[in-house]
Amino acid sequence: MTKRFEEELAELKKCTLKMGNLVEIAISKSIKALLDRDVKLAEEVIGADDDINHIEIVIDEKCLDLLALRQPVAIDLRFIAAIMKMNGELERIGDLAVNIAERAKYLATQPELKISLDFTRMMEFTQKMVRESLDALVNKDAKLARKVCLEDDVVDDLNRQMFLELIEHMKEDPETIERSTHLMLVSRHLERIADQATNIAEDVVYMVEGKIIKHHAEDYCTIPR
Amino acid sequence: MTKRFEEELAELKKCTLKMGNLVEIAISKSIKALLDRDVKLAEEVIGADDDINHIEIVIDEKCLDLLALRQPVAIDLRFIAAIMKMNGELERIGDLAVNIAERAKYLATQPELKISLDFTRMMEFTQKMVRESLDALVNKDAKLARKVCLEDDVVDDLNRQMFLELIEHMKEDPETIERSTHLMLVSRHLERIADQATNIAEDVVYMVEGKIIKHHAEDYCTIPR
Repeated sequence: MTKRFEEELAELKKCTLKMGNLVEIAISKSIKALLDRDVKLAEEVIGADDDINHIEIVIDEKCLDLLALRQPVAIDLRFIAAIMKMNGELERIGDLAVNIAERAKYLATQPELKISLDFTRMMEFTQKMVRESLDALVNKDAKLARKVCLEDDVVDDLNRQMFLELIEHMKEDPETIERSTHLMLVSRHLERIADQATNIAEDVVYMVEGKIIKHHAEDYCTIPR
Repeated sequence: MTKRFEEELAELKKCTLKMGNLVEIAISKSIKALLDRDVKLAEEVIGADDDINHIEIVIDEKCLDLLALRQPVAIDLRFIAAIMKMNGELERIGDLAVNIAERAKYLATQPELKISLDFTRMMEFTQKMVRESLDALVNKDAKLARKVCLEDDVVDDLNRQMFLELIEHMKEDPETIERSTHLMLVSRHLERIADQATNIAEDVVYMVEGKIIKHHAEDYCTIPR
């Protein structure tokens, strides 16, 4: 690998980590806006999404340039391909944070719900998964990536619990139905963020360990089904 | 372009269209299973997801092989990169169809809801968007891709309508709350499928028209923020 190419890859990693950092901030601020009924903070999350969208384009362009100019093979090629995929996932996570912020904004205009739900824990766990999946990617760490895949179950459980608690709450007081469904969707957005982190982590395992999870796949496009 | 490379690209397109076709079938079958309360059909959708997951791996491998061996540049490089992204989106659409099928399976075991919701129209529209986004990709048709982006608003509206109708239904009869929230999530799954199709379409516009939507993006990774 030439020194220039090494520098370019380092720059790509730096950009990726920066995007990851912005996305993490968006997640925590959106939940803070929800819990504190803070419209201004919610609007900040919505406004900051432009930065994330722009970085997505920068990273995509950097990847395409590297593919065209350096024509990488083997692990370098897989790494750049994984970054391109991760890039799309991170942008999507940014969108989900915006969805949460929009619901936070709406709910702040409505009477407060008297229900105690542990969104902070769910958010912190989800955020951790995003950070870990990214660390796994830039450090090509399959072990950490596999850990993220397992953690997804925790968030799924938390989402299921929220779902059940909110259904009970709605049944007890049908006046809260609309507001409760918004909270249900916030929980679902967090669960989807965890899914996106899991997607990144799965790509990392695949990138590092190659064909292990590819099982008789070649048949599927050649044998008519 | 060598004849061999042309053939390989044609094969890649074929694979992509095949995957798109499987995904379209999954979408329509999942909604049919929901409406007909057909557990067997729902299970068929869930089982068929393995095929979609396998094709995703095949397409990814084909793309990586083409990048490594043919070292494409310009439009060919962007096309292969777009296929890799689209591949992930299609796989995710398959997962959403599975989510719908799982809800269909659960709801079939519950008393039927007496509410008329036009899931067929929403499903057909969403399915059309998936097909069009894929056609736009393989034919490098930015005009069709832009049409898909506009169509997303229709599905968003349909989802919002469903949401409001279901909230009313729950308020009128709190006994239906749990079942109604499942239907609400089915509507949301369809809306997300439309989002994924829109993502594909946006990538096509970007692939065909290049840097038009990239606006001062380069600043974002160099200026500290």
